[in-house]
Amino acid sequence: MQAEIIAVGSELLTPTRVDTNSLFLTRKLGERGILLARKSVVGDDRQILTNEIRRAREASDVVILTGGLGPTLDDLTRDAASDATGRPLVRHEWIVRDIEERFRRFNRPMAKVNERQAYVLEGAEILYNPRGTAPGQWLEDEQGILILLPGPPRELKPLFAETCMRMLDRHVSQQRFFTQCLRVAGIGESDVEQRIGKIYSGDPSVTTTILSAPGDIQIHLRAGAPTEEAARAIAEALGAKIRAELGRAVYSLNGAPLDETVAGLLRGRGIKVGVAESCTGGLLAAKLTAVPGSSEYFAGGFVSYSIAAKRHWLGVDEAVLDTRGAVSTEAAEAMAIKARERTVEALGEPAIGVSVTGYAGPGGGTEQDPVGTVFFGIADEEGSAIRRRQLGLGRNRVRALAVQIALELLRRRILGIS
Amino acid sequence: MQAEIIAVGSELLTPTRVDTNSLFLTRKLGERGILLARKSVVGDDRQILTNEIRRAREASDVVILTGGLGPTLDDLTRDAASDATGRPLVRHEWIVRDIEERFRRFNRPMAKVNERQAYVLEGAEILYNPRGTAPGQWLEDEQGILILLPGPPRELKPLFAETCMRMLDRHVSQQRFFTQCLRVAGIGESDVEQRIGKIYSGDPSVTTTILSAPGDIQIHLRAGAPTEEAARAIAEALGAKIRAELGRAVYSLNGAPLDETVAGLLRGRGIKVGVAESCTGGLLAAKLTAVPGSSEYFAGGFVSYSIAAKRHWLGVDEAVLDTRGAVSTEAAEAMAIKARERTVEALGEPAIGVSVTGYAGPGGGTEQDPVGTVFFGIADEEGSAIRRRQLGLGRNRVRALAVQIALELLRRRILGIS
Repeated sequence: MQAEIIAVGSELLTPTRVDTNSLFLTRKLGERGILLARKSVVGDDRQILTNEIRRAREASDVVILTGGLGPTLDDLTRDAASDATGRPLVRHEWIVRDIEERFRRFNRPMAKVNERQAYVLEGAEILYNPRGTAPGQWLEDEQGILILLPGPPRELKPLFAETCMRMLDRHVSQQRFFTQCLRVAGIGESDVEQRIGKIYSGDPSVTTTILSAPGDIQIHLRAGAPTEEAARAIAEALGAKIRAELGRAVYSLNGAPLDETVAGLLRGRGIKVGVAESCTGGLLAAKLTAVPGSSEYFAGGFVSYSIAAKRHWLGVDEAVLDTRGAVSTEAAEAMAIKARERTVEALGEPAIGVSVTGYAGPGGGTEQDPVGTVFFGIADEEGSAIRRRQLGLGRNRVRALAVQIALELLRRRILGIS
Repeated sequence: MQAEIIAVGSELLTPTRVDTNSLFLTRKLGERGILLARKSVVGDDRQILTNEIRRAREASDVVILTGGLGPTLDDLTRDAASDATGRPLVRHEWIVRDIEERFRRFNRPMAKVNERQAYVLEGAEILYNPRGTAPGQWLEDEQGILILLPGPPRELKPLFAETCMRMLDRHVSQQRFFTQCLRVAGIGESDVEQRIGKIYSGDPSVTTTILSAPGDIQIHLRAGAPTEEAARAIAEALGAKIRAELGRAVYSLNGAPLDETVAGLLRGRGIKVGVAESCTGGLLAAKLTAVPGSSEYFAGGFVSYSIAAKRHWLGVDEAVLDTRGAVSTEAAEAMAIKARERTVEALGEPAIGVSVTGYAGPGGGTEQDPVGTVFFGIADEEGSAIRRRQLGLGRNRVRALAVQIALELLRRRILGIS
């Protein structure tokens, strides 16, 4: 079975808006083995939308329309679906009453135009939408399945996950699918490819996809079988072989990102952490506090952006800053040690200190340490370790990559990986 | 004239990747008054892609394909464009030599498969691409214009902005377009709409679009005229009226975001700032340092996430934390005052202190101050000001919105807006 998604709305054809509902729908369809053949974005134009629906239904078994179900006159999905299928729209009085009731509950009068939302394609099933006024619609005919969903993600997502997935199960084969996601840090994409290429290409029962982002590689292993448990077993058998090859560079077996993984480690082992960061300007602390409950392990951080802050707030030795500079092995080490000391003082407990200092650019840098050079420090009871990395160009990219590397170094230090 | 964009690549049909080239292209096309009628994403499937190109060319004057021009066998854009137009692909020896030369420069051998990139649609103009191996292609025939562009943004963007825009000028009317972008903070979308609705709807020569994001509203004013200067004058005349109505809630007249605006103010007035943040966990400092050259005005920040950090690092009075709690008017005030004191001590110069403390959730909160409650403090030589806001739910959303509000309060304090 294959599917197409059509996102409706002129605002999605502007330079500032992007359709993201299709990403969610693609993932859910994938869980039932339905592949996305194509997706498109169409403005609020009845004729163009009608043609688009016709063409998509000719090519694919399942066509999903998102958006354009609201009350206003430029919400044209219902009308275009009616034109494309040749089915009239039928007014359902109970939907009108339901919309009226919703308005009453919020103490607002219901404008007449809202009744547009009570019109449903003849023969379509109504997908009740408790989170909004426009219900979804589900039509099955000789051409396949046509699904109309409201555009707001908070309405669309539960409606699809709860109602549509159950209805899809009437059609899809008994095949179930499972995707395991391994995540890897600290080694490059070509290294990963070279080390595991033979392993995964030797297993045709699993579809392997490698996705690479700065400082982070994802290995998706997708298998199908009559039950989800069986599909899972097939994917995880290959996952175990890959894990055996890559060792502890694999930081996650279930797709959890690095910040969550590190948070879990810190929480599980009762370790406290404090940071001192310069070029990342608060992003490392922000990442460590992105996870709910982070106060269990994160005491706080110093964004010691200026020399004065490094000197006065952290207490880094003036001589280090004067002779070696604020971006140096020595400064990174002193910052990590001082971050640890300040955290231990504040909490009265052991802690790890992590530091980042570098040239994010575009200005700064020296001949020896050009823009993109970043130093990392980690200090704990056993001592300290420093790393220097050259992260290329682009201020935002360097900052984001530096945060990933700092987290990965922290993970390795906790696990005793050298 | 109308255009369509087709993004090519199976990776763009997965749950994790989204096409963003089309946003850039939409903006550039808009500068020449060319509207986007539709956009789509198609996988690496020659037949589907061929049909898509045929259909798009029937409907629109300009069709742009992005991606699928690389050397590998699943790069099928050239072949599909050949099928769709009935034009053979012609091998250009100078492109082969150019690719060989590129490889030589990087000291790598050129695999034979790279020669695929030297095939060009018969009759098409070659768009030389100095940043990659695959050139773009530009075909004009009785059906209109067909443009093939490489997928990597760093190749596509300059190629389109420099070469294609010039070539488009041969076709578009002499009409030129200008869009002014006003940005507004501190008032809600419906307030903005109510206050300026009559102003912009009374001016049919300008197309007005209002885009709303948490804590930030953009008003786009688009006008067309025979020259860019004239278009600009029309848009800016309306912009001035809107500015007069909304006053200093308009923080930017040229689309610059709030962090840049605040950075410009701080830099222009030689003001130094230090922060103390709790629930935003470093994001406020990260925003203040996102702009190059931020060391001119940003001394540093305390991510005083724990009570201990507020107490020991900032020096907030224990009594305040014990009796009023870490999320309170009193704590926000003390944090702002201490952030200022620490910054003044470190720099030996005057400074402003900014603080944020709140419940980002999902845990925490009290009956009086539930999850989503955030307190903001600002302290300078003249005293301090505190604000309390209820920011709703969603940890990430609350954190991001709190950063916007803190920046806006800082902007208003600097400008003396109450």
